[in-house]
Amino acid sequence: MIAEILSVGTELLLGNTVNTDARDISEYLSALGIDVGWHTVVGDNPGRLTDAVNIAKSRADLIITTGGLGPTCDDLTKQVLAAAFGIELYFDETEAERIRGYFSRRIGRPMTENNLQQAWLPVGCTVFSNLWGTAPGCTFEKDGVRVIMLPGPPRECRAMFENCAMPYLRTLGEGEIVSHNLRIFGRGESEVEFPLRERMNAMRNPTLAPYAKEGEMFLRVTAKAATREEAERMMEPVIAELRESLGAVVYGVDATSLEAVVSDLLREKGLTLAAAESCTGGLLSKRMTDLPGASEVFRGGAVVYATDSKTSLLGVPAALIEEKGVVSREVALSLAENVRAVFSADFGVGITGLAGPDGDGVHPVGTVFVALAAADDSFVREIHGGRDRDRIRTMAASHALDMLRRYMTGLPVEKI
Amino acid sequence: MIAEILSVGTELLLGNTVNTDARDISEYLSALGIDVGWHTVVGDNPGRLTDAVNIAKSRADLIITTGGLGPTCDDLTKQVLAAAFGIELYFDETEAERIRGYFSRRIGRPMTENNLQQAWLPVGCTVFSNLWGTAPGCTFEKDGVRVIMLPGPPRECRAMFENCAMPYLRTLGEGEIVSHNLRIFGRGESEVEFPLRERMNAMRNPTLAPYAKEGEMFLRVTAKAATREEAERMMEPVIAELRESLGAVVYGVDATSLEAVVSDLLREKGLTLAAAESCTGGLLSKRMTDLPGASEVFRGGAVVYATDSKTSLLGVPAALIEEKGVVSREVALSLAENVRAVFSADFGVGITGLAGPDGDGVHPVGTVFVALAAADDSFVREIHGGRDRDRIRTMAASHALDMLRRYMTGLPVEKI
Repeated sequence: MIAEILSVGTELLLGNTVNTDARDISEYLSALGIDVGWHTVVGDNPGRLTDAVNIAKSRADLIITTGGLGPTCDDLTKQVLAAAFGIELYFDETEAERIRGYFSRRIGRPMTENNLQQAWLPVGCTVFSNLWGTAPGCTFEKDGVRVIMLPGPPRECRAMFENCAMPYLRTLGEGEIVSHNLRIFGRGESEVEFPLRERMNAMRNPTLAPYAKEGEMFLRVTAKAATREEAERMMEPVIAELRESLGAVVYGVDATSLEAVVSDLLREKGLTLAAAESCTGGLLSKRMTDLPGASEVFRGGAVVYATDSKTSLLGVPAALIEEKGVVSREVALSLAENVRAVFSADFGVGITGLAGPDGDGVHPVGTVFVALAAADDSFVREIHGGRDRDRIRTMAASHALDMLRRYMTGLPVEKI
Repeated sequence: MIAEILSVGTELLLGNTVNTDARDISEYLSALGIDVGWHTVVGDNPGRLTDAVNIAKSRADLIITTGGLGPTCDDLTKQVLAAAFGIELYFDETEAERIRGYFSRRIGRPMTENNLQQAWLPVGCTVFSNLWGTAPGCTFEKDGVRVIMLPGPPRECRAMFENCAMPYLRTLGEGEIVSHNLRIFGRGESEVEFPLRERMNAMRNPTLAPYAKEGEMFLRVTAKAATREEAERMMEPVIAELRESLGAVVYGVDATSLEAVVSDLLREKGLTLAAAESCTGGLLSKRMTDLPGASEVFRGGAVVYATDSKTSLLGVPAALIEEKGVVSREVALSLAENVRAVFSADFGVGITGLAGPDGDGVHPVGTVFVALAAADDSFVREIHGGRDRDRIRTMAASHALDMLRRYMTGLPVEKI
């Protein structure tokens, strides 16, 4: 089975938004063992959309559309797809009722009539109710091609893929395809990939695919077998060997994120964290509190962006800042120790550095000191995150999380 | 002139990376007044790439490829494009020398021979030297179609588009196309679009296009004329009328973000902000410090996630929390007032609410109180952000920024 993802929306062609839907769906399909052959984007233009559907029909077994299901006059995906497959639309009373209910309950404002346009669906389709927004999705099969239509807003698209499309696609597969993802922090792409390259190319089942994202590395192991158990058995020795050769930089298999791993470790041990952030400006706190249930493990944080606030709020001695400089090992440590005390947490993290674009005349832009204070020990890493402001901030927060993970699992903390 | 962006790379089809190249190039082309009709992604597969090139040739005047110019055996874009247009490749000695120099200067490692594969280029093309990496790009015209090839890594792709492709494309355009973007906070997509629908459909030049992103709305006005001045003149009355009819929900024309507008207002007035965040967990601080130069206007923040830290760090009376509940108008106000005092800032923001998934038995999940404290006045908004944790947090931080914007521009603060 080979799939084409057909995204509809002039905003994509204008460069107003990036096509994360195609990325997300590709990732899901890849995990399901379904090959993706093409991504196509067209605007809200019925002629070009019709042509694109006809091209997709001629080469793909599965067409997944995103976008163009909403209430505006630009939203034409259902009409065009139905016409291209020679199917009529009908007005779905159940969905209309759900949309009316959505407005009265969630929005608390009267619904404008154009919203009911979304309740028109192809005759004979399986309806995917949208519990995360208004526009329903659907699936139908005709002329040997399976079509799935999903709404464009990324949150709705992901939720509907996971909850509606995924269970359905699972029933179509032959055998089981199972993947596991090794997550790695502290090694670059070529460092991970180069020693594995020959072996990866020779592997057929399981397969191994490396990729890099936001300063982290991922190694995906995928096996196909008659049963899930057999696929798992085939992957076991491969994963064990990779973990052995990569060592402590592997922070988890199928982990969601560094912050999720750290949160789980804290919860398991009944410990808590507080963060004092300067150049990261709240990013570490934000990442810790992205996770539901964060209040059990995250006490809070201080974003001591202004230099004097480091002293007034957290009691970092002004003389220390004067002597060592605000971007220094000593100030990072003082931030970590003091935030730990102020929030009565088990661990304190202190981050101070230069996210740019301006330097301080001493350190190059990208220099960040990250400190971890525990009850009876403390650690500092000096990192150099390049010149990109976002990247520097992401890396600094990730290093703090990695230090915590290593401390709690008995690994060396300062060196990676 | 209508363009197709053809991105080559199996990593895109596997969902390992998101196609930011297509977004970036679309944005540039849009600014140049060149319509983008299609984005297409294919893998590193010569057969499918050839088919995709033939489809693109049949419908577009300009084909811009990204990716597949590198040194590995998967990098086939130049070979396939040249073959599809019946052009031979030649070995460019100048580029070969540049690539050798890149390795000896930048990488400090001997160059492996496969890197010279990148110096093969289509006969008769204009070479775009890559000063940001190794693989050169190029452009040629044949059969009435203009082809531009750019490397895949986003940083190189952007730099080469700006420095090599852009000056070239400027010489091809006729007239000037100018756009302005109205940014709107506080109105939904259908509320903005519905009253404008008939008018939008009737407009030809200027045109009007609405879109939604992260809880905000955008209205893009675009005009085409012989000169930039004339295009501006054509748009002026349209923009004035839209601003008039939409009113205070328009927070800027061509503004980067709410936080950028607020930062500029603060800087202009010489004022500063501090933030006390509970459910947003540092997101507002992060957004304020995403901007270079944030230290002039943002004093810092307290992420008082644990209830007792609201008292210990910011002095919110424990009795007040006991009496009114931690998610309340009164606690939001106390957070705003106290963080303002602790950080010696001109404004304090306080955010407390339920980002979910758990409720408190009193308020529904998604209820957030956002308070703004100024020197002699204070304000609270109660918002209901739905059930999605990310969305609730984004909306709460945006509401805080909107309140600040309204206060500083003399608009009503609590109602939108």
